[in-house]
Amino acid sequence: MKMIKKIAALKKEIKALRQKHKTIGFVPTMGALHAGHVKLIRCARKQNSIVIVSIFVNPAQFGPAEDFKKYPRTLLNDAAVCRKEGVDIIFSPSVAQMYPSVRGTYVTVEGLSNVLCGAGRPGHFRGVATVVTKLMNIVEPDTMYLGQKDAQQAAVVKRMARDLFISGKIRVIPTVRQKNGLALSSRNAYLSEKEKNDAASLYQSLMLAQKLVKSGLNDAGLIIRRMKGLLAKFKSVKIDYVSVLDAQTFIPLKKAKRGCLVALAARVGKTRLIDNIVIPKSSL
Amino acid sequence: MKMIKKIAALKKEIKALRQKHKTIGFVPTMGALHAGHVKLIRCARKQNSIVIVSIFVNPAQFGPAEDFKKYPRTLLNDAAVCRKEGVDIIFSPSVAQMYPSVRGTYVTVEGLSNVLCGAGRPGHFRGVATVVTKLMNIVEPDTMYLGQKDAQQAAVVKRMARDLFISGKIRVIPTVRQKNGLALSSRNAYLSEKEKNDAASLYQSLMLAQKLVKSGLNDAGLIIRRMKGLLAKFKSVKIDYVSVLDAQTFIPLKKAKRGCLVALAARVGKTRLIDNIVIPKSSL
Repeated sequence: MKMIKKIAALKKEIKALRQKHKTIGFVPTMGALHAGHVKLIRCARKQNSIVIVSIFVNPAQFGPAEDFKKYPRTLLNDAAVCRKEGVDIIFSPSVAQMYPSVRGTYVTVEGLSNVLCGAGRPGHFRGVATVVTKLMNIVEPDTMYLGQKDAQQAAVVKRMARDLFISGKIRVIPTVRQKNGLALSSRNAYLSEKEKNDAASLYQSLMLAQKLVKSGLNDAGLIIRRMKGLLAKFKSVKIDYVSVLDAQTFIPLKKAKRGCLVALAARVGKTRLIDNIVIPKSSL
Repeated sequence: MKMIKKIAALKKEIKALRQKHKTIGFVPTMGALHAGHVKLIRCARKQNSIVIVSIFVNPAQFGPAEDFKKYPRTLLNDAAVCRKEGVDIIFSPSVAQMYPSVRGTYVTVEGLSNVLCGAGRPGHFRGVATVVTKLMNIVEPDTMYLGQKDAQQAAVVKRMARDLFISGKIRVIPTVRQKNGLALSSRNAYLSEKEKNDAASLYQSLMLAQKLVKSGLNDAGLIIRRMKGLLAKFKSVKIDYVSVLDAQTFIPLKKAKRGCLVALAARVGKTRLIDNIVIPKSSL
């Protein structure tokens, strides 16, 4: 496994791999790798001759009051995880390399970026779209792998790649959960044991939504109220949003429908968590 | 020469050319080709095995009150010009193809985009950076050729390509002028004969700036006043801006220096024209 920090060095490596007709699977991460990332890496490993994992805590997607500085950085452990999973290259560039201009170039996806997480985190998805554009241009992957836990991020990135004609497929891989249902996230490291238990309510509320839809209820307003009722029982949980929406356009729905997305964000203690499910098509 | 309208068809063609290890020179245009474009095409022809010219009047770079609808569209003539110059492929996509989303993805270059032409044409350089990102991702040229007449556009595109790590070199080719000094532009087609004569004053004022600098004057404010004085003699000419600035950062200078840019925009009758010179390094 190679660890590469310089963009020029990675580009050189990739050019050589391309000349050998290797296919490249790419997993962009902010590090602090967990079993969710491992699942992405395993998918990439299965489908490509070369797997590249980027580890870059992207300042452009953090707001000024957010956790950029304290975001977990565990490069040694991440490298061990990657080595074990047969990753070929870890790419971990510096901020100065990724953002070479004082006032730089930014990529904005209109429509999808200002709702849900984008409403509470202005500029967040601009930061995401910008860094993924840069990374895709550097790596030129055959396929990039993203997690379903960050559903809005995946939707923004897919739209961006389509609109800008960036080659390379994008695969979105199902969320990995703890036994209690809590979606794996690097930010779970901020939670106390008590908060980890309470945080399982997020998934419980999503399962409630699915159960309600299965039982024939499709009134989105009512589903959301029932979910909020469940979450309100947990004192450490403060809801940011609960939404039933179209999984592609992210437009809120009045009636839940096949394949729609139920998404939520909440603070558990001081930690902001997100989760979502797609209502299975067979349950309606 | 092939004429291709579909992005997918062009991508297929380019993939085949790449497999034959052809080098691709790319000239992005809005059509209405003139001798300035021809110079770009000839440079591309000299330096590459394949030359692709795009012809696309990009709605995203026109303001609501601007000339998108009446912008000259002369595809048949353009095709004849390209054929004569040995162009291999003309790419002329539809607006719907280039902008597939209702609310799409846009590329913004901060700092460079809001000054000079960007101040008077809000959103213009966002439109330019967006369409060039798309075109470069589709064509993946070894080298792209732009004209110095659109100096700010060239600076924005270079910064964008650097910031987003878009491969491919960018060459900026000197402005082609009429005998009277008027810089060639597709918008010259809007000018009456009288206006064409008056429009030569733009270049005269730039030459005056160069002469003043050669004579030892470096006070930018004074140079600009002298240029405005010259332009004021022409009734049909209404100045938008005259500026002495750093050629890379586009920051206005108090003192003209080696390699600095002198740029201006003016309406001649109803037609907005731009022009610029780089003060030769040997003249200071």
